[in-house]
Amino acid sequence: MGHLDIIERGSKLFDRVVVAVLRNPGKTPLFTVEQRLCQIRTATKHLPQVEVDSFDGLTVAYANSIGARVLLRGLRVMSDFEKELQMAHTNKTLSTDIETVFLATSTEYGFLSSSIVKEIARFNGSIDHLVSPHVASEIYQCYNNSTTPL
Amino acid sequence: MGHLDIIERGSKLFDRVVVAVLRNPGKTPLFTVEQRLCQIRTATKHLPQVEVDSFDGLTVAYANSIGARVLLRGLRVMSDFEKELQMAHTNKTLSTDIETVFLATSTEYGFLSSSIVKEIARFNGSIDHLVSPHVASEIYQCYNNSTTPL
Amino acid sequence: MGHLDIIERGSKLFDRVVVAVLRNPGKTPLFTVEQRLCQIRTATKHLPQVEVDSFDGLTVAYANSIGARVLLRGLRVMSDFEKELQMAHTNKTLSTDIETVFLATSTEYGFLSSSIVKEIARFNGSIDHLVSPHVASEIYQCYNNSTTPL
Amino acid sequence: MGHLDIIERGSKLFDRVVVAVLRNPGKTPLFTVEQRLCQIRTATKHLPQVEVDSFDGLTVAYANSIGARVLLRGLRVMSDFEKELQMAHTNKTLSTDIETVFLATSTEYGFLSSSIVKEIARFNGSIDHLVSPHVASEIYQCYNNSTTPL
Amino acid sequence: MGHLDIIERGSKLFDRVVVAVLRNPGKTPLFTVEQRLCQIRTATKHLPQVEVDSFDGLTVAYANSIGARVLLRGLRVMSDFEKELQMAHTNKTLSTDIETVFLATSTEYGFLSSSIVKEIARFNGSIDHLVSPHVASEIYQCYNNSTTPL
Amino acid sequence: MGHLDIIERGSKLFDRVVVAVLRNPGKTPLFTVEQRLCQIRTATKHLPQVEVDSFDGLTVAYANSIGARVLLRGLRVMSDFEKELQMAHTNKTLSTDIETVFLATSTEYGFLSSSIVKEIARFNGSIDHLVSPHVASEIYQCYNNSTTPL
Repeated sequence: MGHLDIIERGSKLFDRVVVAVLRNPGKTPLFTVEQRLCQIRTATKHLPQVEVDSFDGLTVAYANSIGARVLLRGLRVMSDFEKELQMAHTNKTLSTDIETVFLATSTEYGFLSSSIVKEIARFNGSIDHLVSPHVASEIYQCYNNSTTPL
Repeated sequence: MGHLDIIERGSKLFDRVVVAVLRNPGKTPLFTVEQRLCQIRTATKHLPQVEVDSFDGLTVAYANSIGARVLLRGLRVMSDFEKELQMAHTNKTLSTDIETVFLATSTEYGFLSSSIVKEIARFNGSIDHLVSPHVASEIYQCYNNSTTPL
Repeated sequence: MGHLDIIERGSKLFDRVVVAVLRNPGKTPLFTVEQRLCQIRTATKHLPQVEVDSFDGLTVAYANSIGARVLLRGLRVMSDFEKELQMAHTNKTLSTDIETVFLATSTEYGFLSSSIVKEIARFNGSIDHLVSPHVASEIYQCYNNSTTPL
Repeated sequence: MGHLDIIERGSKLFDRVVVAVLRNPGKTPLFTVEQRLCQIRTATKHLPQVEVDSFDGLTVAYANSIGARVLLRGLRVMSDFEKELQMAHTNKTLSTDIETVFLATSTEYGFLSSSIVKEIARFNGSIDHLVSPHVASEIYQCYNNSTTPL
Repeated sequence: MGHLDIIERGSKLFDRVVVAVLRNPGKTPLFTVEQRLCQIRTATKHLPQVEVDSFDGLTVAYANSIGARVLLRGLRVMSDFEKELQMAHTNKTLSTDIETVFLATSTEYGFLSSSIVKEIARFNGSIDHLVSPHVASEIYQCYNNSTTPL
Repeated sequence: MGHLDIIERGSKLFDRVVVAVLRNPGKTPLFTVEQRLCQIRTATKHLPQVEVDSFDGLTVAYANSIGARVLLRGLRVMSDFEKELQMAHTNKTLSTDIETVFLATSTEYGFLSSSIVKEIARFNGSIDHLVSPHVASEIYQCYNNSTTPL
């Protein structure tokens, strides 16, 4: 819900917003890239100026390849702030034309983290108020072979 | 010692304190859950209102099952603060009746972390001033097959 | 609203809660101590175990004088955390029997600060969603000689 | 120089940027509002889409009055982050249509603060690398009745 | 006590340590510069390589004038860290030859702040464990016309 | 470059500086200890008072074995600060004679982290401005079997 909040607000600020999922060969996440692309497309289908894509390699290289001038990021908490600043400053040294722009995540989602959501779902707690319905049912299925909490 | 400090102070605030160890199948910690239960029982045997237990699943679910109304947590440093706040806010969304209550870890234990203690013991440094004697001798045994530093 | 949230949650944890206003001769706040006592009494009249009082001198001395064993404080943000920890550790050195206990302010009030509320009211913005109705109308009166925003 | 950096980068992101100086009756700053407007106009005259203005009252009210949809702010350090987040969240409750957007101040200006600049100038140290030449000479004049460091 | 801790540890690291008090005309502190010089001389008379002095103007200018190559500072908490880093970076731009070197304040004094000490003394609480005996008796005298807490 | 900056500044403060690489059997880093020793020797050969060595076990034990009285560490960001403080306080409890001394990493390297450098190199981005030339070409070789970015 925190990411969706940033996407919705970003789509009011910019004419075109591309939600880009990194194909990271070094990680084995809960969902495949294809599943995540599908989840994001479902959650953003009411936003006509939002596109969903995946990429490989450096974020700034991908941004340049699609003509993006801005990297949009959400800030929740202090520890985000420091990592995001490191990335923004590093990306600036790699491509001076691309700006990183930050939005503050809404207070109601500021405490959310994907690892906490997975932890709750794994122990069969309710996550319906934390992620979109489509994603919630897929997460339950991953952990419990069922689409709702028991 | 930092945890014991929180337990002792908590046992003055509340009639009944349950120290609950999570049975986390995804981790392979230094000690088994049974060893940790034994260590905690040894360290808290002078505190009659303290019980020691293990649990599986969500913390709030366990708390509800034993009738606990309060989750007691220690705060050492800034980075604790943020993670603990995330957990407290998330637990509040899962069970509005359970409050998370924080105590500030005493300054002399504020710099302690279990990974630092293990690192010292692994290289055979003295940890007698950092953990209780029973735990110290067990940690030495884990790393060095001896109950004291060389 | 943030303070009221802490008071309400505290009154579920403890049998008796005293909201104590410091009579600080070195400051000239927006409201007199008497006005603030009245505001707090109005806002907490639905909470039978809550008393409202004022005090002079050290907080721990006042706590000892009324037999309180716990100082209850709300934590909103990082910068709170550091100041509150300093106070908690200092109070501990002054009176080892009194514990400082922290609750995390609800996320919806986590961004609130009294100086921001006053700034908004001073420029005649709406504060009805930030403070209780009684206090809102008194703040408007202070700044604008009117009980509602224009 | 930190502010100028944000203004220049902002003017590449948005079609129209208004640098707005608050007329704050409660403060007696080093420069009058008129002096600051003049300094900013001098420093931004190479940026055609930048306007300079002053305002009274709430920032969101002023933003609405000129049709601005975005408040642009620079983030230097952690302590900024927290205050800025408080303001962004509060402004959101006052006017949901206006977004606060953050840029990270360039690393070379990240340590700059106006109070440090004034402190250096007051003791006649060199500030030529910290503020624009026009402002530097005016600050020296304020403190030393001379337009350069001795 | 926190400052004294830094001075003592600094005097083991460096051949000559000058404790320098800023004569700040813009502030009216509790003690005059002369009183503070006297307090520091009393507290450091067991440290032969420590000198006590006062200065006017920029710290780096004073350091250069006495041939100091290092500014020694104590770090207690996060909020210190940020201000100290700003000063260190700014001083570096003013005089590249002078290094700022930091020591971590001992954990037992990490929560100490001079404003908290004054607050306690003002309300007649005990500060004997927080400052040196000489200073304690002078602070009591300032606030209570007595050299000990009542 | 951030480490080199600390080493160069440290070599002006102290007569003898030993850059010590931990032989950590629990990690499989990008470079072997021997490669890293070679890289550091190449990068510091212009600094006659700098020696390069590797060690096993506790840092304080190694420091004692070579007669070092000071551990020199760089501070970049907040999250560094907390971990470094924990280590400094713990090391103090292990060996009271050894001081940890901190320098603030220069602002231009403050955002650097070795994991970000590796990420960039892995995706074939330029890292020539982030690490020394010798190291850059070795990192490219690791990831791409080539000594320069494509």
